[in-house]
Amino acid sequence: MQVYLSGEIHTDWRERIVNGVAALGSDLNVRFDAPVTDHAASDDCGVAILGAETDKFWHDHKGAKLNAIRTRTAIEAADVVVVRFGDQYKQWNAAFDAGYATALGKALIVLHGPDHAHALKEVDAAALAVAETPEQVVQILTYVQTGKLPG
Amino acid sequence: MQVYLSGEIHTDWRERIVNGVAALGSDLNVRFDAPVTDHAASDDCGVAILGAETDKFWHDHKGAKLNAIRTRTAIEAADVVVVRFGDQYKQWNAAFDAGYATALGKALIVLHGPDHAHALKEVDAAALAVAETPEQVVQILTYVQTGKLPG
Amino acid sequence: MQVYLSGEIHTDWRERIVNGVAALGSDLNVRFDAPVTDHAASDDCGVAILGAETDKFWHDHKGAKLNAIRTRTAIEAADVVVVRFGDQYKQWNAAFDAGYATALGKALIVLHGPDHAHALKEVDAAALAVAETPEQVVQILTYVQTGKLPG
Amino acid sequence: MQVYLSGEIHTDWRERIVNGVAALGSDLNVRFDAPVTDHAASDDCGVAILGAETDKFWHDHKGAKLNAIRTRTAIEAADVVVVRFGDQYKQWNAAFDAGYATALGKALIVLHGPDHAHALKEVDAAALAVAETPEQVVQILTYVQTGKLPG
Amino acid sequence: MQVYLSGEIHTDWRERIVNGVAALGSDLNVRFDAPVTDHAASDDCGVAILGAETDKFWHDHKGAKLNAIRTRTAIEAADVVVVRFGDQYKQWNAAFDAGYATALGKALIVLHGPDHAHALKEVDAAALAVAETPEQVVQILTYVQTGKLPG
Amino acid sequence: MQVYLSGEIHTDWRERIVNGVAALGSDLNVRFDAPVTDHAASDDCGVAILGAETDKFWHDHKGAKLNAIRTRTAIEAADVVVVRFGDQYKQWNAAFDAGYATALGKALIVLHGPDHAHALKEVDAAALAVAETPEQVVQILTYVQTGKLPG
Amino acid sequence: MQVYLSGEIHTDWRERIVNGVAALGSDLNVRFDAPVTDHAASDDCGVAILGAETDKFWHDHKGAKLNAIRTRTAIEAADVVVVRFGDQYKQWNAAFDAGYATALGKALIVLHGPDHAHALKEVDAAALAVAETPEQVVQILTYVQTGKLPG
Amino acid sequence: MQVYLSGEIHTDWRERIVNGVAALGSDLNVRFDAPVTDHAASDDCGVAILGAETDKFWHDHKGAKLNAIRTRTAIEAADVVVVRFGDQYKQWNAAFDAGYATALGKALIVLHGPDHAHALKEVDAAALAVAETPEQVVQILTYVQTGKLPG
Repeated sequence: MQVYLSGEIHTDWRERIVNGVAALGSDLNVRFDAPVTDHAASDDCGVAILGAETDKFWHDHKGAKLNAIRTRTAIEAADVVVVRFGDQYKQWNAAFDAGYATALGKALIVLHGPDHAHALKEVDAAALAVAETPEQVVQILTYVQTGKLPG
Repeated sequence: MQVYLSGEIHTDWRERIVNGVAALGSDLNVRFDAPVTDHAASDDCGVAILGAETDKFWHDHKGAKLNAIRTRTAIEAADVVVVRFGDQYKQWNAAFDAGYATALGKALIVLHGPDHAHALKEVDAAALAVAETPEQVVQILTYVQTGKLPG
Repeated sequence: MQVYLSGEIHTDWRERIVNGVAALGSDLNVRFDAPVTDHAASDDCGVAILGAETDKFWHDHKGAKLNAIRTRTAIEAADVVVVRFGDQYKQWNAAFDAGYATALGKALIVLHGPDHAHALKEVDAAALAVAETPEQVVQILTYVQTGKLPG
Repeated sequence: MQVYLSGEIHTDWRERIVNGVAALGSDLNVRFDAPVTDHAASDDCGVAILGAETDKFWHDHKGAKLNAIRTRTAIEAADVVVVRFGDQYKQWNAAFDAGYATALGKALIVLHGPDHAHALKEVDAAALAVAETPEQVVQILTYVQTGKLPG
Repeated sequence: MQVYLSGEIHTDWRERIVNGVAALGSDLNVRFDAPVTDHAASDDCGVAILGAETDKFWHDHKGAKLNAIRTRTAIEAADVVVVRFGDQYKQWNAAFDAGYATALGKALIVLHGPDHAHALKEVDAAALAVAETPEQVVQILTYVQTGKLPG
Repeated sequence: MQVYLSGEIHTDWRERIVNGVAALGSDLNVRFDAPVTDHAASDDCGVAILGAETDKFWHDHKGAKLNAIRTRTAIEAADVVVVRFGDQYKQWNAAFDAGYATALGKALIVLHGPDHAHALKEVDAAALAVAETPEQVVQILTYVQTGKLPG
Repeated sequence: MQVYLSGEIHTDWRERIVNGVAALGSDLNVRFDAPVTDHAASDDCGVAILGAETDKFWHDHKGAKLNAIRTRTAIEAADVVVVRFGDQYKQWNAAFDAGYATALGKALIVLHGPDHAHALKEVDAAALAVAETPEQVVQILTYVQTGKLPG
Repeated sequence: MQVYLSGEIHTDWRERIVNGVAALGSDLNVRFDAPVTDHAASDDCGVAILGAETDKFWHDHKGAKLNAIRTRTAIEAADVVVVRFGDQYKQWNAAFDAGYATALGKALIVLHGPDHAHALKEVDAAALAVAETPEQVVQILTYVQTGKLPG
């Protein structure tokens, strides 16, 4: 089962999911993928490789498109897409990924705190699960692969 | 040409586009569609029709799903999807629609002010046009239908 | 908006929806389609047209396939599929239609009484609305077309 | 060849198919998948992982969606979908899976006793084989992989 | 309902279907399409328009491709594809059309006499109806549109 | 039948096809679409509507994307795509359109003089017809709609 | 590269292709699949596994559907579909497979003698290669994998 | 990640990309594919295998179709398609491949010198990256796989 971890890049939620699954040993057959989570590299990749831009819009544009080579390919290859909304930033790219995954028929898991529930209601409505903690995502992946519930 | 107007519901940008196109008379063959833009109705439609919920999450959930009957059907029927990001609110549903439209291969036009350019770079990177004013969208629709440029 | 009314054929739920929408006059642009609801004709159409069968299985088989010419074509042409589960019979064809519509990405509305909620949880989980009365379906269609709520 | 075994969870039909194929040794290249067949876990997975619900409908809803992460992913990955209808329960999820698999163009094998033939005629009409025993399914899988017939 | 009439061009089966439906007046909403049925024009269209070929293979090739502009477009636009196998010729193009229509998920009706049943078993197995006379096809179209059976 | 006329914009080939079909009166049901053929408008549309660019690459980029709103939508709506290669310019956009149309399964007609035959062999290999004159395209459209050959 | 070998089952053409490729050693990465080529088993598989039929039509029907589990799955998994037409029988299933493969966008190679060229012109027109001998098919597979030509 | 290298065959750009990636060792998981780059073999493959043609058009046609068995299959299997435009020849097949890849939703990287920028603006507009050197393509593939930027 291929799982793509989209969204927030400023907390350790991805590590908690990946490590949580790894701790279960060979019972689970899950492969994870994710966007580049180095914020500076992600912002500047376009001009770093393809040449500087004087206009910030095109600076951003070239970078966003390079990142799309990775993210769209990975979402298309995924069985399950987990999208995390954190407390900071607009995170429109996370919501974009959720919409993109939904239109492709991927199983969508949304991960966010209760404060964001109203603002994310359209995204949650497209999801097969709405979790609040990375540990719940580990439990979901464990359950859908092995049928075992926590506790 | 079927055009879906997604996103912000608190300014008159849809009217400015629809009226701008209407002012051009029969030269353009454009039909517009949009989500329900009555904020209260949009929030409460689920419980108003299908029964009250004690839990706010499910209150929102029922409403978001009813609205999805309209929005997903309309996006799928559209040739062009215009997504407007305003100054307020999280607007994750707008970004979700942009991702959904992109995965379906729709022609995407994003409409937002320059302040949002960096935060919207992934959404803009998926668009065929990034406009700042509704009048530019009218000009785009005019051009792609008639080949005529403004001025 | 093309709406397909699948499922139970022994109560007047289709008439209540069609008449309810018609009573709203020209405000709504909804076209309805449905399977053949004459139980005897639906059961015997295969042998009536294509010749008798001695084996009941093939008698049924020929009829079910003829009906599929109508039902599959209509579901594929629909924007919204309403599936009604009544109190009697196995109604596996209704659940089959719900699964078929879901895989095609149609907006699914399920209509059933509370007694069936547990047994239909997988079907309901794929739906954008779960209604208990035909009048609620009329209200849903009214809302998603006009934005107007009841009352 | 990837085979998904959908439907009834109260008899040993899956074991009989899996063991029957295993008994044939390395001649067959068949991988099996199935839903979670622990009835209690399947019913309660949603609340066990994502938190309790006071309303039974949402209790069921959360569970049904978690299970869909597994079942829809597995049906989409399958070449052949076997759907078993037993003697008990409504089994609407089995019929839903049959419709879902049909719309995706999967090869469908339906497995049920003769008593259900009339009620399942629409499902059978979509199938490439209608079997009565798990052993017949083993024979089908053997034949389509090796060309060898029983006896 | 769009119906494509593929196959044999040496008997009046198309006229019998079209006239039979026309005789039913405005009750039916069926539009028919068909290949070019003028055998000589169909064979020579390629060289007549695009220039002569010395090699018979390319003479045929250019014609077959021109005809494909019509036939593939029409099959893709059809809801129902009727394929007639007559008593003469190899009619491989008819079987090709049946396979093409099947892969596109079209409702397939095969029309042939009992002598061809064994040789056409794979084609018949993909069909939703196997008829022996054009009048049966008229009855099928009548039934799937109106629910009325003959007699 | 919807026909898209892609490619060269410096000769009157589109007019000759459109007028040639129009001269045939009501026998043909063909609707034509095309890119914007005003070279200057096509080159400058992006900056004229969305604001000037100092870098020629982005000047071109904005224009090319605006034009894509029209061209991709039109190719997707077409049944037949005619691509004309003239004597001048690189015309890579014409070849791009041919590849785009081919991947979408459109019926492709390529129109070019014999000098370009070797360089266009991959494009021609994807076509259902290779014509040298606009009049041949008129004859093809006439034949595939009416079955009538020239002369 | 996955290659499906469809059609005639009465000569050794499949062996000549498979052996010809095997003789080239590890240079080629080709996996072959084919229908069941045991004529008696193929005809009787349905009734042998699923029970006898008194009516020959249903005898054939059950068998044809069982075989379709193998053939349709294999064609969908193939990159290249080779369809062989021999000198005997109607071989409508071969032409059906060619149409099915074409609609799925598979690379089609047709293999037949010159006598059948006119009757197969529509099938050949959909092919990327028309070969007369199995050895030519081996050469094609060699070339498209290694770039090496014979001799 | 599967990468297809389309276009120019007269310089060593493919080797520079493949070697550049190989020099990075096991950090990258990239598999490359390409058309046959032996110009003479590519031109003559059709007649070399399938028999001579007196008409140059059909000589080219047979070869172009054989090559399409390789190229279309490879583009469909690719995650990323790199299309190189060199200084010579019309290179319409390169532009055709770019259009084909775009319609299939592949991540497109275009590689060309600044002189071709205006003529390639429609192709560049469909790309996620426009590079000038093979080394930039190596850096892109490195970045999208590892998140590491050059320098």
